Amino acid sequence: MAKKKDELSLITDTPEEGFEVAVQLARKGVTTTQPDKDVLFMLRDVYSKDPDALIASSHVIAVHYQTVAEANNYWRE
Amino acid sequence: MAKKKDELSLITDTPEEGFEVAVQLARKGVTTTQPDKDVLFMLRDVYSKDPDALIASSHVIAVHYQTVAEANNYWRE
Amino acid sequence: MAKKKDELSLITDTPEEGFEVAVQLARKGVTTTQPDKDVLFMLRDVYSKDPDALIASSHVIAVHYQTVAEANNYWRE
Amino acid sequence: MAKKKDELSLITDTPEEGFEVAVQLARKGVTTTQPDKDVLFMLRDVYSKDPDALIASSHVIAVHYQTVAEANNYWRE
Amino acid sequence: MAKKKDELSLITDTPEEGFEVAVQLARKGVTTTQPDKDVLFMLRDVYSKDPDALIASSHVIAVHYQTVAEANNYWRE
Amino acid sequence: MAKKKDELSLITDTPEEGFEVAVQLARKGVTTTQPDKDVLFMLRDVYSKDPDALIASSHVIAVHYQTVAEANNYWRE
Repeated sequence: MAKKKDELSLITDTPEEGFEVAVQLARKGVTTTQPDKDVLFMLRDVYSKDPDALIASSHVIAVHYQTVAEANNYWRE
Repeated sequence: MAKKKDELSLITDTPEEGFEVAVQLARKGVTTTQPDKDVLFMLRDVYSKDPDALIASSHVIAVHYQTVAEANNYWRE
Repeated sequence: MAKKKDELSLITDTPEEGFEVAVQLARKGVTTTQPDKDVLFMLRDVYSKDPDALIASSHVIAVHYQTVAEANNYWRE
Repeated sequence: MAKKKDELSLITDTPEEGFEVAVQLARKGVTTTQPDKDVLFMLRDVYSKDPDALIASSHVIAVHYQTVAEANNYWRE
Repeated sequence: MAKKKDELSLITDTPEEGFEVAVQLARKGVTTTQPDKDVLFMLRDVYSKDPDALIASSHVIAVHYQTVAEANNYWRE
Repeated sequence: MAKKKDELSLITDTPEEGFEVAVQLARKGVTTTQPDKDVLFMLRDVYSKDPDALIASSHVIAVHYQTVAEANNYWRE
């Protein structure tokens, strides 16, 4: 499954790799709204210690994981 | 896939372009409720520095990305 | 696609019109819970300046847009 | 489509009736957790004037409407 | 549809029974995170009088109901 | 269904085991954002006594359970 570096793809070999794509998509959603790296690093320091923000992040990953899992036909075989 | 300028379409060539459509749809949901550009710019300045709002924005993008990805049959080939 | 005025339909000609239906459905969910127009106008004035409420509104529209897009087979052709 | 009174059914004749079922399901989720009618009426008085709660209610209805719409094959014909 | 007592199953005879499974699943998600029954009872006393928590609970039930309804092919016949 | 230890799989034998995978995925979403075990344990102590956080956690599990249930064709037979 050759692809150009940095090119986004929903198709992965395993459920584990699919999860990484979901995480990547969740972060992409954040960086699209706030592209400033310095601000992002500061904010991440804050929300990574806030239970509510951690659960909310996990939620966004879950939504993207639905998409990625469906794209891969749930890695059924 | 010729289309008129500014015409909304869910069909894109790549997962990356599909993500841009999801972002566009999330913003469209906001501008529909608050069409005043000045208010929007002021609000964006606030929420782009608020971790909770950033995660919530990423969540809305994720929901739209499900729609766009499904529309494109997950760009499977 | 003739239909009686004010009759709710999920089927639209374009993705753009489908988005309007999603917005309409999101509002219908609010007016069902709070039918008093005066209260609604007052509340709208408040939440249209609240970033969190705007993002939450955009989220509800996104959920309905999934439904409308699926109903229209994503306007694939 | 004869059915016993009070019997829950996801199948409806129109998108409008389907929306009513979605509202009914959202309320059923609340009354299941808080069955006391007096408490519920008091709470409804509070949240029907709270923009955030109204939008959150509309969100729950939207999720159920996805289910009802799918059950009815989106009332496509 | 014989099954062992306490065995989780998504398949039910009616939409009403399916709703009960959705409620059961929502609670299971809570007890998995906080297994202490005393703490749970205390918390339930709090959130059953909090409109926001009631709506959030109804939301979780709605998500599970999507799953259960799909599992039962929406009890279409 | 032999698989390597620790290897993530969405396919399970029963709805009950599927629920455990959903819980595992929800936690994985949290640990991905905050990998420090000490911080996580401290935060878990806080949010396991917070009704809102418990309901939010149950919500994330519900989203993943949709994915897992679909992957297993709802354990229909």
